[in-house]
Amino acid sequence: MLYVKTPEEVLAMIDSEFAPLEGTEVVSLRDAMGRILAEDIAAREYVPDFDRSTVDGFAVRASDTFGCSDAIPAILPLQATVLMGEGADFILNEGECVAVPTGGAVPKGADGVVMLEYTEDYGDGTIGIAKPAAPGMNMIFRGDDVYPGKVILKKGRVLSSADIGALAAIGQVRVKVAKRLTVGVISTGDELVPPEVQPGPGQVRDVNSPMLEAMLTAFGCNVINYGIVIDDEALLAEKVSKAISQCDAVLLSGGSSVGVKDAACRIIESVGQLLLHGIAIKPGKPTILGKTGEKPIVGLPGHPVAAYFITKLFVQPLLGRLTGRDMTAYTVTARVTESISANHGRAQYHCCRLTRKDGQLYAKPIRGKSGLITTLAGADGYFCIDRDCEGLPQNAEIQVIITSGV
Amino acid sequence: MLYVKTPEEVLAMIDSEFAPLEGTEVVSLRDAMGRILAEDIAAREYVPDFDRSTVDGFAVRASDTFGCSDAIPAILPLQATVLMGEGADFILNEGECVAVPTGGAVPKGADGVVMLEYTEDYGDGTIGIAKPAAPGMNMIFRGDDVYPGKVILKKGRVLSSADIGALAAIGQVRVKVAKRLTVGVISTGDELVPPEVQPGPGQVRDVNSPMLEAMLTAFGCNVINYGIVIDDEALLAEKVSKAISQCDAVLLSGGSSVGVKDAACRIIESVGQLLLHGIAIKPGKPTILGKTGEKPIVGLPGHPVAAYFITKLFVQPLLGRLTGRDMTAYTVTARVTESISANHGRAQYHCCRLTRKDGQLYAKPIRGKSGLITTLAGADGYFCIDRDCEGLPQNAEIQVIITSGV
Repeated sequence: MLYVKTPEEVLAMIDSEFAPLEGTEVVSLRDAMGRILAEDIAAREYVPDFDRSTVDGFAVRASDTFGCSDAIPAILPLQATVLMGEGADFILNEGECVAVPTGGAVPKGADGVVMLEYTEDYGDGTIGIAKPAAPGMNMIFRGDDVYPGKVILKKGRVLSSADIGALAAIGQVRVKVAKRLTVGVISTGDELVPPEVQPGPGQVRDVNSPMLEAMLTAFGCNVINYGIVIDDEALLAEKVSKAISQCDAVLLSGGSSVGVKDAACRIIESVGQLLLHGIAIKPGKPTILGKTGEKPIVGLPGHPVAAYFITKLFVQPLLGRLTGRDMTAYTVTARVTESISANHGRAQYHCCRLTRKDGQLYAKPIRGKSGLITTLAGADGYFCIDRDCEGLPQNAEIQVIITSGV
Repeated sequence: MLYVKTPEEVLAMIDSEFAPLEGTEVVSLRDAMGRILAEDIAAREYVPDFDRSTVDGFAVRASDTFGCSDAIPAILPLQATVLMGEGADFILNEGECVAVPTGGAVPKGADGVVMLEYTEDYGDGTIGIAKPAAPGMNMIFRGDDVYPGKVILKKGRVLSSADIGALAAIGQVRVKVAKRLTVGVISTGDELVPPEVQPGPGQVRDVNSPMLEAMLTAFGCNVINYGIVIDDEALLAEKVSKAISQCDAVLLSGGSSVGVKDAACRIIESVGQLLLHGIAIKPGKPTILGKTGEKPIVGLPGHPVAAYFITKLFVQPLLGRLTGRDMTAYTVTARVTESISANHGRAQYHCCRLTRKDGQLYAKPIRGKSGLITTLAGADGYFCIDRDCEGLPQNAEIQVIITSGV
């Protein structure tokens, strides 16, 4: 007999019952954005590889400029001019200076750069320096940024554009990433018709297939949509078997009637192991989790809002676990615009719309009697009322997970 | 003569100098995730289109159950059984009941559903009802969710997975969205080599091309990467002309030397109008903005961190403006782990890493002498020290824009 589990217990079960899959692949930098790093990335060289100037000016031995000023400039012969993109393979002579552009190489011996603004070219091969250089001033030294062996990105990281920039900087133009998971999506229910079909009496459109496909594709998965299966255990078993053979994970949604839920449990038990039947959460209680080998099979509620939350809260962490993905998420602080009651004993989730007023962010819970998916159109995020909380008063501070995207 | 502008002035200039482009296209729901809606979406029908039960149970006239209890159940003849996916095109007789599954149609006349748990099938064609139904109980009525003409998504919305679900629910399987912008990226600088090349003396790898390509692709643009152009005004002018003819917007990055910046200004003036030269921001001051017709040309700083911030702070809002995109963004509240000084008179941006301790989020600024892009590897977000602020003490509360992704 399986008991209803708390969300925390379900997340712990995901960690203990599943492990990162072995599959990795090597992709070019151009295809790396948003992918999950499958190894730590360490620099293999110095960045920068040479001492550089951060300004247009003159490289000097700082000590040659000590005490100089507008009134009494240091007058230093110009030894050479460094061009952009060329090396400076010589040593700065004592008492002389070298012209360098921003980003240009600074010759050995120099330990500071004086900005052009504080210098004067006397036209006779000497430069007047009107401001002393402190050692290290206006320079980046070799390896200041990174050095060989320094880990700059950790395994599990979802690569961002700044990360791509950093990888380019160290010449790491190919990276090992977790393979994209292939996830099968099956909708069940005699009442379902595809979204493009006008529902007849008693029928509704299949919302879960397109919604799950969009969610999981954006999450980096390949999705195989197996369409709608009627409530027939043999047909469903056949479809699930096919999906298991083709996918890394299978999501079965619907079967909101008792008979079908039992069928889903029986099918999972016939091909593997049933791990969970029911989560103490609202919406989304009638959730099933099982596995066959390393592959998870999830029975999502048929109600689209419930399917939405279960996918955000448990399926994405599960798929994250299979790919070793860092699942750290951040919340935005807001005040709830109206009091809201909750069922003691179940974590309760609400989508909300956010507005800003006088610098304060306000979250308006999206409810309405039905809680159907169309009410979630235009949602900006969601929040949770904890299991042990009986509700929230107006203006209570809440933490919102953002789901709308800039 | 163009003066350095504040970030607010630059954003206002973007709004006044540029307008949404006309181009839209119609895509299927499968391709709509993350796209920018080009029209308001209104429902064209009722959802649900029929009265539905939210539980497995018996539809009743609520008044027939008033006063019933465990001890004295209301005994109602079973008039019919509604099957999932079928209509209920009859009227519930007074004093009778109808079996309905979760999600099933409720016949006319019924105004409540009693859950299976509170009923008993006597096996003689009658059902015992042990709990009274309040009118409306366990039902969703026709149009509760949406009704014809109700706007469920507004123009400019970046479509989320919940939005896709809502569109499926109302049968809107094709949506009009803004065309993807084509953005040209050109890197300039004699010192640049492609990321895959080992830099020689005085050379550095081109970070901006791959970084900008990743940022803008993730932002929904098609990117044409024109590669590296040496600091030669004629060559650069030719490349810019080509990019203008092929793209909706052109980003020129680099030219950190004074001569090249002047060249970029001259090139923009020769093909259009120079709007801006310099933003009171750190990093990123040497930024140029111009336009030719409706097309923006941006001269980004060559320094990758500066190019990164200018793209996040101004180029994305500019591309958002061209596509009518809702650019609402949210911030996460954190405390800064160390005191940090700032240049009075310029808005100053820092990337940071976030950690959570005892429920409090802490932001560690990423600095280091160089501020080169590799130090930004693994950043979780960024924050701003306002122009009029001289710095932040340790533990000061800051607002962080998240850039790392779950």
